[in-house]
Amino acid sequence: MTKKLLIDFGKRIRAERLSQGISQEKLAELADLHRNYIGMIERAEINITLLNIEKLAKALKTTPIKLLRSKSTRVEKQRH
Amino acid sequence: MTKKLLIDFGKRIRAERLSQGISQEKLAELADLHRNYIGMIERAEINITLLNIEKLAKALKTTPIKLLRSKSTRVEKQRH
Repeated sequence: MTKKLLIDFGKRIRAERLSQGISQEKLAELADLHRNYIGMIERAEINITLLNIEKLAKALKTTPIKLLRSKSTRVEKQRH
Repeated sequence: MTKKLLIDFGKRIRAERLSQGISQEKLAELADLHRNYIGMIERAEINITLLNIEKLAKALKTTPIKLLRSKSTRVEKQRH
């Protein structure tokens, strides 16, 4: 249950980032977060806070709600 | 910008909790969180994590996305 949410969120960040053609480094810069932090989020190694979700949403020109919506990762949601 | 998200979220938790007629203590119990933590969230004193948003959502029989949606606090959203 719990961890799955972070895994899905990480996949969604990655999918959104790649669809916009930006690197982890660039996203870190745009979101004013540490470079390594982006990788940790994408790998679900961090229990991200609401304010950092907002930072990422702004950097990706989207909203926290859209980042949490499962349908945006439908493609990546095979099985795990 | 930033802090506002936490304020709105805290209000939403409070509104949802009250609409279900449960105390902070009861919500803490249902969500398996510390009792004082609920008050801190409602007062936007904490930058809540995604996993704790999920815990609260489950305890309130809703979803993280619904808790983040601004329209559910329309009533309380007068001015601040």
